[in-house]
Amino acid sequence: MNSPSPLIFDPLIRTALAEDLGRAGDITTDAIVLSSARVAAAVVARKDGRMSGGAVATRVFEMLDPSLEFEAAIADGDDFREGVELLRLRGPARAVLTGERTALNLLGHLCGVATLTRAFVEAVKGTGAVVVCTRKTTAGLRALEKYAVRCGGGSNHRFGLDDAVLIKDNHIAVAGSVAAAVGAARGAVGHLVKVELEVDSLAQLEEGLVAGVDALLLDNMEPDTLREAVMMVGGRCITEASGGIDLTTVAAVAATGVDLISIGALTHSAPWLDVGLEIGS
Amino acid sequence: MNSPSPLIFDPLIRTALAEDLGRAGDITTDAIVLSSARVAAAVVARKDGRMSGGAVATRVFEMLDPSLEFEAAIADGDDFREGVELLRLRGPARAVLTGERTALNLLGHLCGVATLTRAFVEAVKGTGAVVVCTRKTTAGLRALEKYAVRCGGGSNHRFGLDDAVLIKDNHIAVAGSVAAAVGAARGAVGHLVKVELEVDSLAQLEEGLVAGVDALLLDNMEPDTLREAVMMVGGRCITEASGGIDLTTVAAVAATGVDLISIGALTHSAPWLDVGLEIGS
Amino acid sequence: MNSPSPLIFDPLIRTALAEDLGRAGDITTDAIVLSSARVAAAVVARKDGRMSGGAVATRVFEMLDPSLEFEAAIADGDDFREGVELLRLRGPARAVLTGERTALNLLGHLCGVATLTRAFVEAVKGTGAVVVCTRKTTAGLRALEKYAVRCGGGSNHRFGLDDAVLIKDNHIAVAGSVAAAVGAARGAVGHLVKVELEVDSLAQLEEGLVAGVDALLLDNMEPDTLREAVMMVGGRCITEASGGIDLTTVAAVAATGVDLISIGALTHSAPWLDVGLEIGS
Amino acid sequence: MNSPSPLIFDPLIRTALAEDLGRAGDITTDAIVLSSARVAAAVVARKDGRMSGGAVATRVFEMLDPSLEFEAAIADGDDFREGVELLRLRGPARAVLTGERTALNLLGHLCGVATLTRAFVEAVKGTGAVVVCTRKTTAGLRALEKYAVRCGGGSNHRFGLDDAVLIKDNHIAVAGSVAAAVGAARGAVGHLVKVELEVDSLAQLEEGLVAGVDALLLDNMEPDTLREAVMMVGGRCITEASGGIDLTTVAAVAATGVDLISIGALTHSAPWLDVGLEIGS
Amino acid sequence: MNSPSPLIFDPLIRTALAEDLGRAGDITTDAIVLSSARVAAAVVARKDGRMSGGAVATRVFEMLDPSLEFEAAIADGDDFREGVELLRLRGPARAVLTGERTALNLLGHLCGVATLTRAFVEAVKGTGAVVVCTRKTTAGLRALEKYAVRCGGGSNHRFGLDDAVLIKDNHIAVAGSVAAAVGAARGAVGHLVKVELEVDSLAQLEEGLVAGVDALLLDNMEPDTLREAVMMVGGRCITEASGGIDLTTVAAVAATGVDLISIGALTHSAPWLDVGLEIGS
Amino acid sequence: MNSPSPLIFDPLIRTALAEDLGRAGDITTDAIVLSSARVAAAVVARKDGRMSGGAVATRVFEMLDPSLEFEAAIADGDDFREGVELLRLRGPARAVLTGERTALNLLGHLCGVATLTRAFVEAVKGTGAVVVCTRKTTAGLRALEKYAVRCGGGSNHRFGLDDAVLIKDNHIAVAGSVAAAVGAARGAVGHLVKVELEVDSLAQLEEGLVAGVDALLLDNMEPDTLREAVMMVGGRCITEASGGIDLTTVAAVAATGVDLISIGALTHSAPWLDVGLEIGS
Repeated sequence: MNSPSPLIFDPLIRTALAEDLGRAGDITTDAIVLSSARVAAAVVARKDGRMSGGAVATRVFEMLDPSLEFEAAIADGDDFREGVELLRLRGPARAVLTGERTALNLLGHLCGVATLTRAFVEAVKGTGAVVVCTRKTTAGLRALEKYAVRCGGGSNHRFGLDDAVLIKDNHIAVAGSVAAAVGAARGAVGHLVKVELEVDSLAQLEEGLVAGVDALLLDNMEPDTLREAVMMVGGRCITEASGGIDLTTVAAVAATGVDLISIGALTHSAPWLDVGLEIGS
Repeated sequence: MNSPSPLIFDPLIRTALAEDLGRAGDITTDAIVLSSARVAAAVVARKDGRMSGGAVATRVFEMLDPSLEFEAAIADGDDFREGVELLRLRGPARAVLTGERTALNLLGHLCGVATLTRAFVEAVKGTGAVVVCTRKTTAGLRALEKYAVRCGGGSNHRFGLDDAVLIKDNHIAVAGSVAAAVGAARGAVGHLVKVELEVDSLAQLEEGLVAGVDALLLDNMEPDTLREAVMMVGGRCITEASGGIDLTTVAAVAATGVDLISIGALTHSAPWLDVGLEIGS
Repeated sequence: MNSPSPLIFDPLIRTALAEDLGRAGDITTDAIVLSSARVAAAVVARKDGRMSGGAVATRVFEMLDPSLEFEAAIADGDDFREGVELLRLRGPARAVLTGERTALNLLGHLCGVATLTRAFVEAVKGTGAVVVCTRKTTAGLRALEKYAVRCGGGSNHRFGLDDAVLIKDNHIAVAGSVAAAVGAARGAVGHLVKVELEVDSLAQLEEGLVAGVDALLLDNMEPDTLREAVMMVGGRCITEASGGIDLTTVAAVAATGVDLISIGALTHSAPWLDVGLEIGS
Repeated sequence: MNSPSPLIFDPLIRTALAEDLGRAGDITTDAIVLSSARVAAAVVARKDGRMSGGAVATRVFEMLDPSLEFEAAIADGDDFREGVELLRLRGPARAVLTGERTALNLLGHLCGVATLTRAFVEAVKGTGAVVVCTRKTTAGLRALEKYAVRCGGGSNHRFGLDDAVLIKDNHIAVAGSVAAAVGAARGAVGHLVKVELEVDSLAQLEEGLVAGVDALLLDNMEPDTLREAVMMVGGRCITEASGGIDLTTVAAVAATGVDLISIGALTHSAPWLDVGLEIGS
Repeated sequence: MNSPSPLIFDPLIRTALAEDLGRAGDITTDAIVLSSARVAAAVVARKDGRMSGGAVATRVFEMLDPSLEFEAAIADGDDFREGVELLRLRGPARAVLTGERTALNLLGHLCGVATLTRAFVEAVKGTGAVVVCTRKTTAGLRALEKYAVRCGGGSNHRFGLDDAVLIKDNHIAVAGSVAAAVGAARGAVGHLVKVELEVDSLAQLEEGLVAGVDALLLDNMEPDTLREAVMMVGGRCITEASGGIDLTTVAAVAATGVDLISIGALTHSAPWLDVGLEIGS
Repeated sequence: MNSPSPLIFDPLIRTALAEDLGRAGDITTDAIVLSSARVAAAVVARKDGRMSGGAVATRVFEMLDPSLEFEAAIADGDDFREGVELLRLRGPARAVLTGERTALNLLGHLCGVATLTRAFVEAVKGTGAVVVCTRKTTAGLRALEKYAVRCGGGSNHRFGLDDAVLIKDNHIAVAGSVAAAVGAARGAVGHLVKVELEVDSLAQLEEGLVAGVDALLLDNMEPDTLREAVMMVGGRCITEASGGIDLTTVAAVAATGVDLISIGALTHSAPWLDVGLEIGS
């Protein structure tokens, strides 16, 4: 997987380190560990999972001390087993101890997102359905969380309010009709911007098809309704199922033939994947 | 509960809005909704929970349009039932629609942390044990997540590497002994800084007591060992249990008599609490 | 026209004012004008043109003194004649004099972009061709310049490297073929991201059609070739002409039937539209 | 020419790259080009011109990948012919492709300013007149545009409101007289700050001389009036002609004997100088 | 006195408040004082002095709570007696208590600079000598400290490395001669930039006069030498004495007839002026 | 001494350099000194003192030019004599000359704080009293000034409002009693936060002891009262004397047996320690 450019995530890491260092820095390590002490260490998985965030964790340590050396043991997007070393580092002990928590917090979260995504992706295997994330991301972490979803085998929905049109019920209510809303949107945006419409009934879906949207978000529909929706669409646009889908229901949704299944939980409720730092001799 | 000052969380909100607005802003709403349109809306709970983040969500909308008016229906730190209105707002429709996702993302996360904390706090009710969070927080959200823990009835551990000393095994290894590590730390920090020692055996605990630490973090000990540890300490310092404690085991840990139980999951694995925005007439 | 949210352009204005105020502020005005002095003033057009940036200019003054009062005389997207008042303001004289240059610099540039765009739009009137801008924008001003293009009657191409795929010759060279490049891109991006291919021959165009791109950028083609290209495409995807098109050639390009004509000069070479500040009694 | 310190222009470059990378980065290049691919490339002039911004363009690429290697082929302040290589670079292909537009946007703009300045400088050759820029610069680019003017053979007027006094008609109106305005300014600023007075009549000029200003800005005067003004001044202070001077009129203005000719168009209306990136084997 | 625009000092105040609030804010006040509590308070002088920084102190409180009301009792630039109220405020008790230290730190420092400056100014009264500050200022506070010097009756030297030329011995050594150094500088800077030369002998002074500098900085000269220097200059340029001048020696230096006396201690060694906050009913 | 991490002080240095470079940079040096010129230089003490800020001064130069080489001649926390070299550097002349003032400003201030602290520490030698600083620090420099106090042999009080509770008279007035104030604070803060109470009478002291505070700040008490207070406390908590203590009175205060003596002047009134830059061949 292509990690985002450090230009994209450096501000977040700087914020996270500032938040942990505060005004006085790592007072425990600074008091006890000599600045000349050196260690070898490894970030180790304490659970099975899918890797994401190796370059991010590395950058945390590197910002603290550019003289540290790193070896990525598991690449982003690869699976790992409990006990495996994900990343090895070697250099000044202080930077290793001071950066530990910030690096693990980011890595554990991103591996958590990737691992949960993988579970959904595996649950729909054999269907053509693609698992996608939403804009229900953590403040400041959108780019990284969306990357973690890709590491987990999923794909990405909009990155923000500005890179695609998504027309919802409130927009339709204001515009007066699906046709009016779609028309207004098409008239305002450039030729490289797609228009998706959220519908909660097959009648609305029909209006959307007539209005010529690029994608339909089928919100909170039962599998039977979804199946009917997919048939009505007949490949004329992308279909996306959404709304309260979890690991127990996602296979049934995928079986309806929808192109995409979007799941907010990938980014807003992925449990942390347990990772630790082990310091060697 | 005392919400942190906006001076503390405004930079996070600004980051979150910038992340969602991107370069072109809310192209859907701007295309379809007139700038003169006004709405009344409410943030509604879709699950039972504990409130946290009302002022944060309010600030999101306020940054988009200072002319919006707000009414906090549920105060931070209060419980709510599914279906209840948490926050009401009224004003320009565009700001409401544009801010919706950013506000809900923050609110749902903070309510999630508060609600999970509440569950742990209820599980230890009747014991004197206090539930505390750790530094396993989300990059950029530490102040808010620690506040959410307080909203949930928990208490806070260190806010960073700089406001208390926490001596761990690697520090002891470098220093040569518990006594040496504690001595070095005490010598380096001010009189208002407490020193906590992480121990994984009763022998180490003894050394810590001799060295005169303010608190002992009893790491990954079974309830029987914890009970013995608490008796050995005999009130001479604060005792804190830590390590892999969950809702099924926390009561047994609390029954050992430890003063504090620290739980990383409060902040790193709290599932989002489902909240939505409903727009009225 | 919908002006972008101040959240999007405030950082630019803050930078511009800081750049002009330096360390000591407006030493001329502060020395000569009493803080209690008040004026009425108007931004006046010294040439005919198309309005863009009214809210931006207003915000400059407002940042200097929130007590100023404004009246937008000409709305963004409207035409104006030389001598017309574009914006009226009233309040503390110091803020008016201090903000004058920064406000006029931004307004004159944005009106310049809108006015040049209008000229291209008028030159293709009667054809279906849409005039679009490029990423050849001024560092830090992309959102505003793209907005000014819309004020001028044009439409926007990509806002950045991340909101649409644009495959160029170097990408094809690396990938080995158009098909390989398009396939790699489609596989990596989400369902709401369109894929455009830059081609410089009809053979490449054919490959692009087979690969199923959303849009074809026809680079540096003569009108005859463009006409042939448009016929070959036959409506199967969007066609865009690009490369060295100016006001003398744009009509001929538009007559070929292409959907879009992209012109870097709209943003990188629009001359400033002369605007001045007149202070009344 | 001495390029400004990167400490001065790095924030602008960071802004420009962030603006282009957005949240997801260069999705086209990341999808198609392997991270191990390397290229040699050159920035090539597509028109004759004067160089400015070599270090700025270099820094764009360097921020994306510090392992790139550069060779400046044309120094800032030197002339170049169409087709000439301005800058050569070699290293990871991704950074080259991703940085291309941001680097060219800055370089083309700065070369445009330098080249337009050169034209004015050549037009006044043989007179003693110096061509200077104004504060009519692009928001955020003042330091670089003023540097580009120097690269073009021009000189700089004030960098901001705070490094020299420039008294205009509104200041005089408020102060009551030229003498009062000059006196107030002199009394308020330090001994290293010069005072310039804008005058639009020979009567005002006389008042300025009496008040002892360091420089007179002769606004919108015809050549004959300018000549008379220069004679009246008789070397007692610097004379500067200003107001609507273009390449067709500048020689006549210079012939009047004024010391300086200030031209807003140097920075606000310089057309982009066409530069491209060519990628070799 | 004209306080600098808040746009100039707001970033400093934001930094100072962030530094004091840290991650958790004012934990004492938040725990003890109800958010509804209101107070009237006054900043009171505990020593005689000269006022500077009223608007700065006000802004500290205002950032914490915009609903506070203020009354400036002593204007910047005015003298005050021990015990006098400098500023009165009324509103939410929390903001008053939380902002107290940050506001007093800034105000006490700026009054300290103004008061020390006043002492020097009084010591030279009756001579024509002007007391000026240097660039020996506190990191981040230059604009405010220079303003405080003006409040104290002094004047300002350069604000930075970029608004005037100051040629020192190392520059002369590199250039080869005073004439060469002055020539190089004049050739590089604009017409509104003055050139000052630091000399430590009368021979160098002679060279400076020949080279035509705007000002001479007479470094570390005894009064007799200064007097001779002033006579040699004979009004042909500004003369400035500098180097180790204190309150016991400044009158003798002023009596030599120099135009200016620059004193680093004004900004780098001014003791804090004791100010306190008194809270009423 | 452990210098704080550059992550903590880099923003301050960036601000300080930006403040000095302004928009045009070091115009004197850039005009006169070739970019290829190289020098060896040393920062030299012009007075006896205690070193602090070596890494900070180094970082100033390093930000201007990473190719400079440094040699720390005196370590932070060590004493030095007038005339001694504190830091040696070698490399491009421009960076040395341009960074000189910013580096010396920071170094002279930090050495000033350390040297003043040393004086107080020496004055109390032989007693057990520890000299501590307060929150009366310079805006933006708190972390560095507190570090300089440690370099001087002192210790640190709170770093901000958030890392310890300090209850003052206004808090007690609002709470109704010492007991209520202490109780409210204890109930609100975590287990690693200490509670200190400011008292101005022995009666209040008694209340504080009963309430179980961690430390007592004995404000503005005469030595006799302090001695009585220390006896009353009898080691049950930390005792700190505060209020108007100077070098003439500190020994008497220390002799009373208090644990700590806090002195605002360490940070708010330390005179600059004179340091200069000498450039060799």
